Amino acid sequence: MDLKETKLSSEPIYQGSFVTINRDKVRLPNGNESQRIVIRHPGAACVLAVTEEGKAVLVRQWRYAADAATLELPAGKLDAGEDPAECALRELAEETPYTADRVKLISSFYTAIGFCDEKMYFYQAEGVRLGSTLSNDEDEITETVLMSKEEARTALAHNEIKDGKTLIGLQYWLMQD
Amino acid sequence: MDLKETKLSSEPIYQGSFVTINRDKVRLPNGNESQRIVIRHPGAACVLAVTEEGKAVLVRQWRYAADAATLELPAGKLDAGEDPAECALRELAEETPYTADRVKLISSFYTAIGFCDEKMYFYQAEGVRLGSTLSNDEDEITETVLMSKEEARTALAHNEIKDGKTLIGLQYWLMQD
Repeated sequence: MDLKETKLSSEPIYQGSFVTINRDKVRLPNGNESQRIVIRHPGAACVLAVTEEGKAVLVRQWRYAADAATLELPAGKLDAGEDPAECALRELAEETPYTADRVKLISSFYTAIGFCDEKMYFYQAEGVRLGSTLSNDEDEITETVLMSKEEARTALAHNEIKDGKTLIGLQYWLMQD
Repeated sequence: MDLKETKLSSEPIYQGSFVTINRDKVRLPNGNESQRIVIRHPGAACVLAVTEEGKAVLVRQWRYAADAATLELPAGKLDAGEDPAECALRELAEETPYTADRVKLISSFYTAIGFCDEKMYFYQAEGVRLGSTLSNDEDEITETVLMSKEEARTALAHNEIKDGKTLIGLQYWLMQD
């Protein structure tokens, strides 16, 4: 079955520092016309880093959109032209006291595919160790939380993880047993 | 540590049929001021429905933001005032030939917590069976795909699932063994 939608025209609605919003007119495969609101995003990377003691390195931070502090994998937006693997390593070092030798891509996925093209690159870190200094942006205020597999299992069972990429990361970790 | 950010003012940027975009000025816990772009969304529901034959019911549809056809859990936005459980049952019936007796909430999570308040309610269906007729919106063109656990395991290993909520749903299913 032909599913493809073809862009007929695009009207910019908003141009921000990292998101752009367009209203596009499209041709559906059945011939009808429709409209798509699309939020364009540069993409992001997140990382599952497990310490030598077998604990996942998470960050607790305030999330304005959720109006709550949440526990998440270290993550962040890609800088212009940045390799997602570099971004994952950078965010780990910026947001936590840990660094890693390298990262391995586990999956890449759209976070909100119905209206946004943000692609999230999910990595697992290798050679995780305490780094020298925390190179945090002073306006990016985070706490580091170490979580064992048992604690992760309990947090998932009680729906305490409120962030999609972090659910994916912790489930992936628990499936590695 | 106090992590809370306090709203100082809010400026509307865009008001669409289902998303609203605001630029808010906030006070950070360190006393600095900053700006937050927030996309307000009504929320959504998705459902893992497994047939009597042990296959997950997925839908293939065109995703304009991704410029590709993707394989996903049945899902959709909440109608105004709609119970997310009703939404999950409705979307299953609208997008696939299957219906269910009821759904059980597994988790709820933010899809793109850095800039959007979309909350996704993830359910598992119970009493899954073929329904009478497909009540699809004529402009919502989808194909139903049934996937075994073995196929799901392979799809995850090959990074063939490109949608966050679907990764969460399939990982959850595979962890139930």
